[in-house]
This record gives sequence, structure tokens and C-alpha cells, in this order.
Amino acid sequence: MSNSNNYFPAFSATKLLKELSENPIDLTQEKNFTSNRIKQYCAEACGYKLLYGTERVDEKVMQALVQLAKESAAVEKMQAMQNGAIVNKIHHHPCENRAALHTATRDLFENSNETQQAKEAANLAKNEVEKLEKFLKEIEKENHFDQLISIGIGGSDLGPRATYCALKTFIKTDKIVHFISNVDPDDAAQVLGQANLKKALVVVISKSGTTLETKINEELVRAEFKKQGIDATKQMISITMPQTPMDDRHRYRETFYIWDWIGGRYSVTSMVGGFMLAFAFGIDTFKEFLKGAHAMDKTALAADIDKNLPLLLALLSIWNHNFLNYSTTALIPYSQALLRYPAHIQQVAMESNGKSIDKQGKFVDFQTGGIIWGEPGTNGQHSFFQLLHQGTAITPVTMIGYKESQSGLDIEIEGTTSQEKLLANLFAQSLALAIGQKSNNPNQYFSGNRPSNILLANQLTPFSLGALLSLFEHMVAFQGFIWNINSFDQEGVQLGKLLANKIIDRFAAKKEKIAKEKDPLVDSYLHHLDQLS
Amino acid sequence: MSNSNNYFPAFSATKLLKELSENPIDLTQEKNFTSNRIKQYCAEACGYKLLYGTERVDEKVMQALVQLAKESAAVEKMQAMQNGAIVNKIHHHPCENRAALHTATRDLFENSNETQQAKEAANLAKNEVEKLEKFLKEIEKENHFDQLISIGIGGSDLGPRATYCALKTFIKTDKIVHFISNVDPDDAAQVLGQANLKKALVVVISKSGTTLETKINEELVRAEFKKQGIDATKQMISITMPQTPMDDRHRYRETFYIWDWIGGRYSVTSMVGGFMLAFAFGIDTFKEFLKGAHAMDKTALAADIDKNLPLLLALLSIWNHNFLNYSTTALIPYSQALLRYPAHIQQVAMESNGKSIDKQGKFVDFQTGGIIWGEPGTNGQHSFFQLLHQGTAITPVTMIGYKESQSGLDIEIEGTTSQEKLLANLFAQSLALAIGQKSNNPNQYFSGNRPSNILLANQLTPFSLGALLSLFEHMVAFQGFIWNINSFDQEGVQLGKLLANKIIDRFAAKKEKIAKEKDPLVDSYLHHLDQLS
Repeated sequence: MSNSNNYFPAFSATKLLKELSENPIDLTQEKNFTSNRIKQYCAEACGYKLLYGTERVDEKVMQALVQLAKESAAVEKMQAMQNGAIVNKIHHHPCENRAALHTATRDLFENSNETQQAKEAANLAKNEVEKLEKFLKEIEKENHFDQLISIGIGGSDLGPRATYCALKTFIKTDKIVHFISNVDPDDAAQVLGQANLKKALVVVISKSGTTLETKINEELVRAEFKKQGIDATKQMISITMPQTPMDDRHRYRETFYIWDWIGGRYSVTSMVGGFMLAFAFGIDTFKEFLKGAHAMDKTALAADIDKNLPLLLALLSIWNHNFLNYSTTALIPYSQALLRYPAHIQQVAMESNGKSIDKQGKFVDFQTGGIIWGEPGTNGQHSFFQLLHQGTAITPVTMIGYKESQSGLDIEIEGTTSQEKLLANLFAQSLALAIGQKSNNPNQYFSGNRPSNILLANQLTPFSLGALLSLFEHMVAFQGFIWNINSFDQEGVQLGKLLANKIIDRFAAKKEKIAKEKDPLVDSYLHHLDQLS
Repeated sequence: MSNSNNYFPAFSATKLLKELSENPIDLTQEKNFTSNRIKQYCAEACGYKLLYGTERVDEKVMQALVQLAKESAAVEKMQAMQNGAIVNKIHHHPCENRAALHTATRDLFENSNETQQAKEAANLAKNEVEKLEKFLKEIEKENHFDQLISIGIGGSDLGPRATYCALKTFIKTDKIVHFISNVDPDDAAQVLGQANLKKALVVVISKSGTTLETKINEELVRAEFKKQGIDATKQMISITMPQTPMDDRHRYRETFYIWDWIGGRYSVTSMVGGFMLAFAFGIDTFKEFLKGAHAMDKTALAADIDKNLPLLLALLSIWNHNFLNYSTTALIPYSQALLRYPAHIQQVAMESNGKSIDKQGKFVDFQTGGIIWGEPGTNGQHSFFQLLHQGTAITPVTMIGYKESQSGLDIEIEGTTSQEKLLANLFAQSLALAIGQKSNNPNQYFSGNRPSNILLANQLTPFSLGALLSLFEHMVAFQGFIWNINSFDQEGVQLGKLLANKIIDRFAAKKEKIAKEKDPLVDSYLHHLDQLS
């Protein structure tokens, strides 16, 4: 495809959407915002409904968005990604030059993708799952380990942790998982204060095998093992790429693999999330989770946006972001189990699409990835929702809700259960944002016309959680395809690392009183530090 | 003060800042961004340094910001607030019409504010602290309760929870606190699965005594008490205003008071946070926390911005938000203990300043409160920092760091401790955002000129945490004073409540098959719900 064809501002759909955005539908008008609208603006896949009647779209906008998807060849690019094409690439410039085949890690049951690359990747992933199954049987026989300490950061932490929280209530288990991620020594101290190291497996996760924070935290735990006279090689497992410094059977009881075609933030369904999930909840739960993700992977290949939820969500987000000019999105799960889910999606979205160049290496002149943030509802309603309703900054909201609770523990008060009250609040927020409220008291005036959508499913289960994960992964990928940016690298983290290492050297030199070339900028920070007491 | 005097866009400082914002200092120029700059752009109070050499300000901008503070009478308004003036008010319109005297809840040691209102408020608060002290001695004698279940939402949850997390590592204790907040029944289920109700005090917190979520969760816990044959009246405590439905000694063992002059989001230093903190960490720790907050309260009255950290932080945020047009702020604590602190400040800031009308009830034509979001560093560096460095959306960052860890557990690897590595990363991010990096490879190009500042102190202790809390509370209040909006009400949450109750009624009617007037909008949501399985 030529550069000009890929150029988002040049698409005719883009021009059309620009025109349409000058006069978006007014949801505060009763004639516009009807019950039929709420019924009809609904797409469905893998057990999820996406209700988007509360977005500021009409038929013309939807047609233009469909056209945008076509002009940008979004679905073809998704197919190419799942086929193993080198999508992690900036043309004509040094870059990672890799596939992004995280979908292969869950194509283990039907081998639905038949390209050679995808098949090979799926086979590799399948081997690891089988290795894991065998390993867990061995562990089970030993009947010794009742806890897991997971050491990792970024993609090796946020996704697995969010997933663990999401399933914790639902699945009965006598296992517990602790997470250490931050280089802040207090993070490890907290976990080591709670964990029983004698009965703990420790899994160290780093794709490169060299992540600073993870290495340091591993050493902290190893020091503690030593202190307690525990043989670390019998309790430590590593998850890394083949042949990194962590692929070492002298230091670890077992090593499970990931590969360069799995980005950290897309690695939850690989061994990065898999080891922990299978340990804590059993291999079958992990497989259910994979099946849910795989079901949504296939959905992401559908041409019809009434079925392709990730594409539809991406198109709606682009409408809000690039045309209605709303800079952030709030992600509000009406499910306490999804407490850490927004933090994970924040990484997936912002690390993927927080870019300023297109795939040809040209600086873009439009807004790429926006900020995603959020906390569970109804809690958020007692916090930042004031701004969502009456603030000067308009923030599109995506809400996630379930018909049934996970635990089944509930109580009926005044005729309704807690779960019904939770759902009532979800629907109410969506309505309130859309229709607003006229009032002669300006303090009770709500402008309305604030866009939102709702993802609704029956229950948060391993399967539906897998589908939800894949849904957002692919929403982000579709945004990238349409903007023609590379959603799979993260060069923006390098400069900070470089400077941090320089400062770390400076700290070390200062301590050992090694004469070192002065760095006035760094020294001015150390000057401030010295003054504190 | 007349309306026109209060009008933010009409200040001459505003006009001057507008001009200056057309050409802000270029931090990527070596001649501009010097070590002297980092040394000199520093203000200090209560053990905190605020380093702001990495903001896009110069002497002219700083002078104009000082002028802005003067024209808006910011410090006088802060004094009036602390004196007990009716600052929670919209003139000529029905409104809450109250003082905002949360500062009185920590003016217990020197009685530094001598106005009648402030003195009376401080005396009321002092009585409750004494009552609490007595109550805890009684509990201690019984030697029975080793855990606390705290039920509350919004201001009765976020601040206390963030504070508990922040102090957990530092203070040795054999007590544990569980929190239930969400109306999602899975939230309570999770806690009830972990807690030992026989040994648990339960504190129910609702200023109005009628908060839906809190009432429901209380009933859930009461049902569980009943099931286990426990006498709830011996173990349940309420925190509420006098004479609410929760001020009832037949239902609660003891009731502690707050008053209408304490907003929920400003209530951490009242009994709302105090009961839990004193139970978990001892009354002395709670008092230290109050002392830290009080020290910063006094600082907020200083005319000199080199001492008045909350005012300085507010002015810098207004420069970034209203003049450089950056719509959000990232709050990044380089301290894992502050994990939930951004969620609390998110509430304080966004519920306070997410407003569209001024104190005269006129709609404003400028941006008020922006979105605040964040996660701890270094974790964020492995997540959304990609966007902070190379995204098209520029996000000012406030980082919080400490010279010493809380736990003291640390390990020296390659000549530096984890704490030093943590600080090195903090400084490095601030530098990287400011200076950027030129490169012929567009993927390795960093534009720089991305503003940030650093709050630096020696250690996160009860005192310094109190100071930090007050610092952000007052930063938010100063923003409100300068914009001339009411930072102390939250009318924006009412419409959602209203609609939620309507939908809850609908659910109840449907279940009991009561014929009820149809509500087509609501019914279209229920239609979708019915289709799920």
C-alpha cells in the first residue's frame, strides 16, 4: 500500500466525518433519543453486547465510519496481523521488524489460522501449555506449594495482576498469589512480610531477561531465600525468551518461553499470565480464558461491524477522539473484580498508540492515542463523575457490566438485589450523560450530549474475561491500523532508561568516591537530595 | 467582591499569561535548561521540596502567576476558608451554603486559628478525638478485636484506603483493615470470605447516614453477623453527622461525628479517616498525621509562593491547563505505598473543580478542573510513559519521591540500592520529558518540552503523609479560588442518583409484576438485559 493511501487525514471518509462532526446528533432532544435507538444501536459477539445508542452518532456517521474502516483496510490488516505478517515495523528505519502474533497463543484448540507463521507460533505456544500441565502435576504431587510470588513489571505485571483480581472471587481455591513489581524496596518488603517463602513458588518474568526492576527484586527474594536456608533452584521458575540470561536451568527449576512476536503488553495469554493463572485456578480455567480470547480474535476478523466489536469500539473512539476532539476516555467497570482492569488497558492502549510517527516514519499531524483512565463504578460516581457530568472537559465513557454477580452472595433490600442496583446505576449514568437536565438553577443544569457506551454480558467468567481482554487488545490494534501507526513497539521508554542508568552510575560513583566527570544537571538533583533530612 | 473582579479571563495577569503562553521557554535549549535552573526553581515547606525547573516557566511567567494569585485574592480566600467563612456557596441560587472547615479537624494542638467558627469546629473535632482515645482504650482492654471492616464509599473510602496503604509498610501492627465500598455484591463477598467476623469491629461511614451503597453493604454484613450468631450492636460503629438515621445507639455500639462543614472528599483527617487509622496504627500515629496536615494548612496561608507549596502547585497547574492548554495531569508517586493516592487526589480534584459555573451562577467560558490520573513509578514507565514521551497528547506530570524507603529492607546491587535506583528513575524521567532527544531515526526522536515537577521529601511518614494530603487539598482549593468556582459542592452527582432510583423502582416493579407506568428508555435497557444468558 502506498503512503498516500495510508494517510488518515486524506481518506474521503475522514473528510466526510469532519463535516458530520460539525453538527453531531443532539441526544438531549426527545425525538432523537428514543427507546428504539437504544435497542437498535447494539452489536453483539462472544456473549457481549455493545450498546452505543448513547454515542453522538447517527446513520450517516456510522456509514462514514464503516467507510473509514474500508479505506484504511482495517480488517485486512487485522487478518495480516493474525497471519503473522511483520506488522511491528517502521518502513525505511531501524525498528523491531517483528510479527505481533499474540493471537497464536490462544489458537490452540481449533488451529483456525492456517498460515505457516501462525501455525508454527501456535505450536510453540501449545508446547508450553503442555509443559506447564506436566509441571503442575509434578508440583501437585509434591503437595508443598500453596502460594506463588510473581515478579515482573509492566506487561509482566499489569495484565496478569488484573486477571488474577478479576477471577479471584469466582473461583474457589486454596492458593494465593503475591505480586512484586516496583523497584521501590517497600514493594518487595510488603510481600516478603506476608508470604511464607518455604511454601512459595517464585516466578520471575522478563521477556528480555534483563529488566532492571525484575532483576533487582529477584535478587531481593534470593537473598531472603538464602537467609532462610531455602534452595532457590528448587522454587524459582523463569519466564523469558529462549537464550536470554534468564533461560538458565542452573538458576531456575524450570523455564517457560515466550518469543519476540509477543509484545509485553499483549502477553497475558502466553506463559506470562498462564503460569500464574494455571497455578492459582487450575489449567482448565486458563484454557477457558484462552478460549474466550480466541473467540474474540475470530470476531475481530468479521467484515460486519455489527459483529466486530473491537472494530466498532475503535471506530467510535476515533469519532470521539479525532472528530469530536475529546482527548481522554474513561473506562468504568461496574464490577469490583475488574478493579485493576483499567490500569492494564491503560498500558495496552497508551503504550501501543502513544506515538507521533506513522509507519513510514513521518510525523503525523493529527491526534493518535488518547489517555485512558478509570476506576470501578459505582465508586467512581462518588468521586470524579461530578466532572464527567458538569465539568468543562467532556470525557467519553466506556462502561462494562454484568447481569449476574460472580459470588452469588447478594441480598434483596426493598425489592431489588445489590447486583440490580449496580446495573441500575450503570444504565442511569449512561442516560444522565446523554440527556442531561435543564434547570433554572445553573448548579442543577446538566448539558447532556456526553457520549458513552456500555459493554454488557451475562457474567464475568474465565471465558468472558478472555473475550474482554482480546476485545480491548484488538480495539487498540484497529485504532493503530486506521491511524497507520505502529502499535507494537515502545521506543519512547528508551530515553528514560538511558538517563536513569547515567544517574545510577552517578550515585554509585558518589558513594565509592570515584572521581567521575561532572554532570551538572544530574548533580543539581543530587544537591536537592542531599539537603533533605 | 464584585463579579467582574472575580472573573478569571478579565484579570490583567490572565491577559499577560495568554501573551506569554505564545512563546514559552524552550527547555530543549542547553542555554535555557541549566543546572542553576534546577537548583533555583525550588520551593520548600513542611519537609517537601517542590522542584519545578522542568516546567515551561521563566521569571516573567512566574511574576505573572504571582500577580494572578494577587488579583484573585487567592491567599485571602484561603484564609477566609480556614476562618470558617461560607465558601461553599453559589450566590443568588439554592446551594449548600456552608463553611469548608476541614482544616479545623487538625488544628487541635496549637489552636492557631482564633476565629470563633474555626475554634468551635476545632473543639468539636477535639472532643471526637478524645472520645476515640477513650473508646480505643476500652477496646484494648477487651483484647478481642484484631481486625476492622470499614464500610463507606467515595470520600468515606478513597482517602482512608489510600492513607491505610500509604502507612501499612511503615508501622508494625498486628491489626488488619478490610474495606467494602462498591454496591457490587462481589466486593463484600471478597471481604467476608477473608475476614473473621467474630474478631472484627465494623465501622459504617456515611456523612448523610443514607448513602445507598453503604446501607446495602451494612445490611449484607448484618445478615452475616446474624448467621454467625454475633450481636451486631456490640461490634458495629457508625460515623455520621448528628441526627442522621445512623446516629443511633440502638444499632451501633458507638457513633463518632462529622459535621456539614466537612466535605466527604476532605474528611480523611476527621473521624472518617481517624477511627480506622487510630485503630490500625494507634492514636499517636493519627495525631502525627494530623500534625503534618496542620503544618501544611499554615503554609497555605503564606503570601510568598516560595513557601506556599499548594498555591505554587495550583499556579503551575493553571499555567499548564489554561494557558498551555494541556487537558490532563498525571500524578506519579515513586513510592509503592502511595499506590492508591492518585485515586484519592482524583476525587479531591475532579469532584471539587469539575464545574461549569462560577460562584455567581454564571457559566464559565474557560476550562476549569482537568482530569488527574496516575499510577506509581517505576511501574508507569513500563506502561503509559510511552505516550508521555512520544504521544501527540502532552501531559504535565507531577512526581512524588522520597530519599529513604519506609521499610529499610533494601539491597545494594552494582553499587546502588533499590531506593537509589528508584530516585534515579524519577529524576531521569523529569529530565527526559524536558530535554527530549534529537535523532535522525524518527522513532527515536523525543520532542522534549513536556512539563513536569517533583515533590521530594525525606521519607513517607505519618507526618509527611498528612502534609502531602493537605498540600493537594489546598492546591485544589486554590485552583477553585482563582477560577472563582465553588470547589465544595457536588451537584453533578444528583441526576445519576435520581435516574438510578427510577430504574431500581422499575426492577422492583418488574419482579413483583406490579403494573407500572412504562418508561420506554429504561425498558430498552432491560430488554437488552433479558436477552443475555
